[in-house]
Amino acid sequence: MQFHWGLPMQFMDELLDLAAMPVEAFSAKASTLVRFSLLDWMVCGLAGRREPLAEKMRALASAEGGRPVASIIGGTAAPARMAALVNGATSHALDYDDTHFAHVGHLSVAIYPAALAVAEELNAGAGDAMAAFLVGAEGAIRVGTVLGRSHYNRGFHQTATSGAFGATLAAGRLLSLDRDQMRAALGLCATRASGLKSQFGTMGKPYNAGIAAANGVECTALARLGFTSADDGIFGMQGFVETHTRQAEEAVPTGEFLFEDNKYKLHACCHGTHSMIEALLVAAAERPLALGAVVGMRLTVNPRWLRVCDIKAPRSGLEVKFSYAWLAGMVLRGDLTGDDRVYTDALAKDATLSNFARRVDVIGDESVTDLEAVGVLHLSDGSEIPLHYDLAESMPEEILAFRLRHKAQAILGEEGAALWDMLDALETHSARAIGARLSQSNEQL
Amino acid sequence: MQFHWGLPMQFMDELLDLAAMPVEAFSAKASTLVRFSLLDWMVCGLAGRREPLAEKMRALASAEGGRPVASIIGGTAAPARMAALVNGATSHALDYDDTHFAHVGHLSVAIYPAALAVAEELNAGAGDAMAAFLVGAEGAIRVGTVLGRSHYNRGFHQTATSGAFGATLAAGRLLSLDRDQMRAALGLCATRASGLKSQFGTMGKPYNAGIAAANGVECTALARLGFTSADDGIFGMQGFVETHTRQAEEAVPTGEFLFEDNKYKLHACCHGTHSMIEALLVAAAERPLALGAVVGMRLTVNPRWLRVCDIKAPRSGLEVKFSYAWLAGMVLRGDLTGDDRVYTDALAKDATLSNFARRVDVIGDESVTDLEAVGVLHLSDGSEIPLHYDLAESMPEEILAFRLRHKAQAILGEEGAALWDMLDALETHSARAIGARLSQSNEQL
Repeated sequence: MQFHWGLPMQFMDELLDLAAMPVEAFSAKASTLVRFSLLDWMVCGLAGRREPLAEKMRALASAEGGRPVASIIGGTAAPARMAALVNGATSHALDYDDTHFAHVGHLSVAIYPAALAVAEELNAGAGDAMAAFLVGAEGAIRVGTVLGRSHYNRGFHQTATSGAFGATLAAGRLLSLDRDQMRAALGLCATRASGLKSQFGTMGKPYNAGIAAANGVECTALARLGFTSADDGIFGMQGFVETHTRQAEEAVPTGEFLFEDNKYKLHACCHGTHSMIEALLVAAAERPLALGAVVGMRLTVNPRWLRVCDIKAPRSGLEVKFSYAWLAGMVLRGDLTGDDRVYTDALAKDATLSNFARRVDVIGDESVTDLEAVGVLHLSDGSEIPLHYDLAESMPEEILAFRLRHKAQAILGEEGAALWDMLDALETHSARAIGARLSQSNEQL
Repeated sequence: MQFHWGLPMQFMDELLDLAAMPVEAFSAKASTLVRFSLLDWMVCGLAGRREPLAEKMRALASAEGGRPVASIIGGTAAPARMAALVNGATSHALDYDDTHFAHVGHLSVAIYPAALAVAEELNAGAGDAMAAFLVGAEGAIRVGTVLGRSHYNRGFHQTATSGAFGATLAAGRLLSLDRDQMRAALGLCATRASGLKSQFGTMGKPYNAGIAAANGVECTALARLGFTSADDGIFGMQGFVETHTRQAEEAVPTGEFLFEDNKYKLHACCHGTHSMIEALLVAAAERPLALGAVVGMRLTVNPRWLRVCDIKAPRSGLEVKFSYAWLAGMVLRGDLTGDDRVYTDALAKDATLSNFARRVDVIGDESVTDLEAVGVLHLSDGSEIPLHYDLAESMPEEILAFRLRHKAQAILGEEGAALWDMLDALETHSARAIGARLSQSNEQL
């Protein structure tokens, strides 16, 4: 199936077509990534369940009570709208979840909590939840692409804003909303969606993901009850686009699933360091590399990262996550950069890493994209090893699955590995069985 | 107490000062209008309880369940966050609630539902809820004034956007949030607040009022649990002002309570017709006036109203609400324009009104403000009666109370009059007693 995404007249109709798209029309790659996203989202959610933010969100849910129809990560159960709010925030607490760069946002944390909560309430299958997620994710990317850089640069957090439309599409598909109801749900979402980047660095950032998910559940529940709304809340007069971006993008990609470009974090540190880490891992995979044998390293990255993740002498575990030099030493030493618990404050005082850091030069160059790393390692025997990695290139599915499983095991141990054991038969589970994996974990707390 | 509302550095601090302002510092007029607003809001809520929108909102609340700590209009009780959502939407269903023109929005429907729900949960007094409402209303006006016409013209619905900050201030005061918590609550509100005018004419408009109220309850509950947020979510970098208006107003009024200019609807029709109706009522109060004795009427209004409420031959009861000519005939005949139920479709076919309408001329003139009506009645004896009314002029409190009570009785009968019997001892009631008046009415449904 091909989408044309004509702007602005056809956009709403194409979103409605997308929401009703049969599973058979999904691309194979998109269907595979949807499954990876579900498991990786569950891992991020469980890894975040002990964060103070997660505890506060669960306290809010406990205080309200209500029909326990949807699982709460690290807790019990709540109404779907509340579960979506709590789980969205909890799964984004560690900022370790997937990213879509054209959407400029995180898809799973905004959309899976809505899809799963509604699927649990309806006692639908995990396959239905995943199909709903895919149309939601693709719709969110489309809305995000239209809102464009102008929206993001103005200060809006696409994860929350475009994400709410994705959550609405996903929840609406599960609820079998008819076309008019789905149109109304998207209209209500246009007046309900919100989220600002100025929350970054505070609990407001993960809260934004929860907002998006909860908005999707609320707007679809109201539309199902017969609520009316604007005919075209997105592109209509004074709709979401006109009010939330100075310049809507005219050149929206046509064709199939943009979701195929979804990216997964494999290291629990700043995204700007990932291409360097991957470049070092590729080099180390090709020949034995001892940290002590590296006498120098030169790294070239896009200049925007120099202000973000080139901390020369980190003072805390958090700052290590933003330090090329420290992270390079860790990778060469074989540290598990995928485990969030590795980044302790003691690591910032590590003498070996401190010594190695003095031998690292980082240079900015506009000709290198912000997904790329280029460089060279100088060895004690006088030889040089070139470094290069581009995150824009697609990783083979088997390798990605293997590494995401490894990430799960690194941060959750056996619990994480067990989640990935579900991969081959994911569709045979009920949404409630998936939810139980998230909430039963509470017993271990 | 004088506020300076320095922009942008002092604004947040002044909002925090306002939230903690002692009751003794409230102006007498503001304190009086706050009491009128409570009763008038209750009347609007009860009058709207049978609207389809209200039934749908109650269905949402019933489906979720939860701790029944706050009354639902025309229903039972729910968690405070849900009660705020339902009651905000229900009380705005008829669009018969109060308006603040500088704020460009409706204050009571966004703020009272939040204040009352939280006050009920805490078992606070009605006086506490009213004090909380006042700081919320004043804060919402201040935020609305800063966002300015540019925000409204861009497509945002101030009732929902600025209103959410008001609901947050009100709920936060009741929860005794300390200064840092209130700052966090306002920061969370900045990322949560939303609402578009493109919902006008649909259920999305009253929904917007519910959104504002629910956002206030949610953001303050999270702040009380220790949630962190942006230091200055309103004027900070990429905060609400920067993201939601092209041009913040620099000339914000200093001084005391802008809330003193709050206006109340006394007729169940378009606000643009109210100055004409009042002018006719003034004329009729000064001498006996029979509809049959009026051979002609000339009316001058601001030109913006000609596109809104000058329907020459209304086809339905709804269109009568937007027809100067029909409404003029109704007033001269002694019809109760304050009773929403008067506006039937049969009224649009009324021969007497149709005949009279042919004798009415309406003219636009920019020198007349949009709160004014100027005109003349030509009588059959050759005499002329000048017409003039300006809604901007303050109505004496006793007259306003009398007429609001009359409005209550017109639309709710004895139930409405009984509400206004509470006026003199309003502070002696608990918030739960107020809530009971809203929910117990369910028994009559």
